Amino acid sequence: MKKDRSITTTTQLCAVIGNPVAHSLSPAIHNAAFNELGLDFVYVAFRVEALGKALDGMRSLQNFRGMSVTIPHKIEAMKFVDEIAEVDRAIGSINTIINENGKLVGLGTDGPGALKSLVDAGVKLAGKNILMLGAGGAARAIAFTLAQKAHPGKIVLLDVNETLLNGLVSDLKTGTETMIASGALNATVLQQAMPEADVIINCTPIGMHPHEGVSLVPVELYRAGQVVFDVVYTPLETKLLADARSRGLVTVSGVEMFINQAVMQFERFTGAEAPVEVMRRVVMEKLNS
Amino acid sequence: MKKDRSITTTTQLCAVIGNPVAHSLSPAIHNAAFNELGLDFVYVAFRVEALGKALDGMRSLQNFRGMSVTIPHKIEAMKFVDEIAEVDRAIGSINTIINENGKLVGLGTDGPGALKSLVDAGVKLAGKNILMLGAGGAARAIAFTLAQKAHPGKIVLLDVNETLLNGLVSDLKTGTETMIASGALNATVLQQAMPEADVIINCTPIGMHPHEGVSLVPVELYRAGQVVFDVVYTPLETKLLADARSRGLVTVSGVEMFINQAVMQFERFTGAEAPVEVMRRVVMEKLNS
Repeated sequence: MKKDRSITTTTQLCAVIGNPVAHSLSPAIHNAAFNELGLDFVYVAFRVEALGKALDGMRSLQNFRGMSVTIPHKIEAMKFVDEIAEVDRAIGSINTIINENGKLVGLGTDGPGALKSLVDAGVKLAGKNILMLGAGGAARAIAFTLAQKAHPGKIVLLDVNETLLNGLVSDLKTGTETMIASGALNATVLQQAMPEADVIINCTPIGMHPHEGVSLVPVELYRAGQVVFDVVYTPLETKLLADARSRGLVTVSGVEMFINQAVMQFERFTGAEAPVEVMRRVVMEKLNS
Repeated sequence: MKKDRSITTTTQLCAVIGNPVAHSLSPAIHNAAFNELGLDFVYVAFRVEALGKALDGMRSLQNFRGMSVTIPHKIEAMKFVDEIAEVDRAIGSINTIINENGKLVGLGTDGPGALKSLVDAGVKLAGKNILMLGAGGAARAIAFTLAQKAHPGKIVLLDVNETLLNGLVSDLKTGTETMIASGALNATVLQQAMPEADVIINCTPIGMHPHEGVSLVPVELYRAGQVVFDVVYTPLETKLLADARSRGLVTVSGVEMFINQAVMQFERFTGAEAPVEVMRRVVMEKLNS
């Protein structure tokens, strides 16, 4: 499917909006998937400052089907869409907008993408103790999704920022039935929390390139049977995951969540089943290049 | 240049907006030209009703470089752009919008496209008597361009709608130095006007598919040395042109104006010299299919 043959007056546009967007992998991932399935879609990137006007534009440009929304617009975008699911309203951010004939529907695929990554890795979550490091945007999306969909026994949240932490705990207690505990993110609390934890999820940027080689969890705190998931995916294996793997634990890289959130966006954009392996290959090629 | 290889975060978007747009040839023409030159652009079509919001959106979506504007938005679009040339303001419509870092510049390429078609056909216009049939949007664009750029001796305008006609005559007299005459578009006036005319330009839809086979000019009114130009391009050779050709006259099809206006848009979008023969081939393939 070449540009000059395939694009017609009915081709639908999708795009990532953010500021900056120059490093986004989304055009490569989604175009490869459209191409693989021969779908009449094309995906570009728009740097956006005036978010409201950009979304008014989307509403007015028929054939502008879908958007991936990235930093710094994931929170503010909620104000400008016409419809939003309760869970996404509770999370407080969206990463996807679908144009349904001029009505903009906002939703988040980060939380569902994280859940799918754990399920695909064979991780059982029902009744389990989940220890989450960090209480920012990624933690909000994952905590709400796990609390509402995965029936965990308990979610323990740790963060250095008490205000952020208490806000998320309060919102989770209001919005879900799951048992929630919380504490400061420091060595003492970690040492107390780790023995009980079945699944450890790092939602902080600690360990991300160019500051790889550091981990919040001392390797001696791991115990047999734990699962460790890191939302960071640059590098593909953080020190947190490498340490866990050295202790024989099941590990899940943030790249799986990243692929899954794109897969879910793709399926909402197109209504077609996403060619997951093609999308994974593009991500891996880009991250390894 | 395939979709999945070529589109990146820096790919620039162009689009035709109109209502409807389903029959537009513009995506095929411009994408073929981008492809030919290996330019990092892609061109789609958007049906638009809320024009102001669509243009606000364009302004806010960096990488949304250019628009072709078609019916019914060519007049109203002038209200929403930030800058417009004096000649286009006089004409009263635009067919092109360029996004210069958030500033929208409107311009028209129909008039210059028509002029280029005549020049390319070897037609001398300076000092000549030009007879124009019709005083609508196409006539306005062509008459202003010829009056300002081609130094004709006189432009004679005929239309059945006296209000439309007088408006254009008055605007031309205000906005240009060219001698202007006008009259009703009927057999008597035509018979008087034809002997003096050096160049005859049909700017009415008479002769357009599906009403081909009719012409405003009785074949016996042609005289040696005249040039006949028809803005209609479906069919490629209207009865007006076929009659003129049967009398040995130079004829210019509206398809040349259509190609030229696209070429001029392409060059404003990209800053590159347009691959005119590729664009012509796409138009001819589409019109013959």
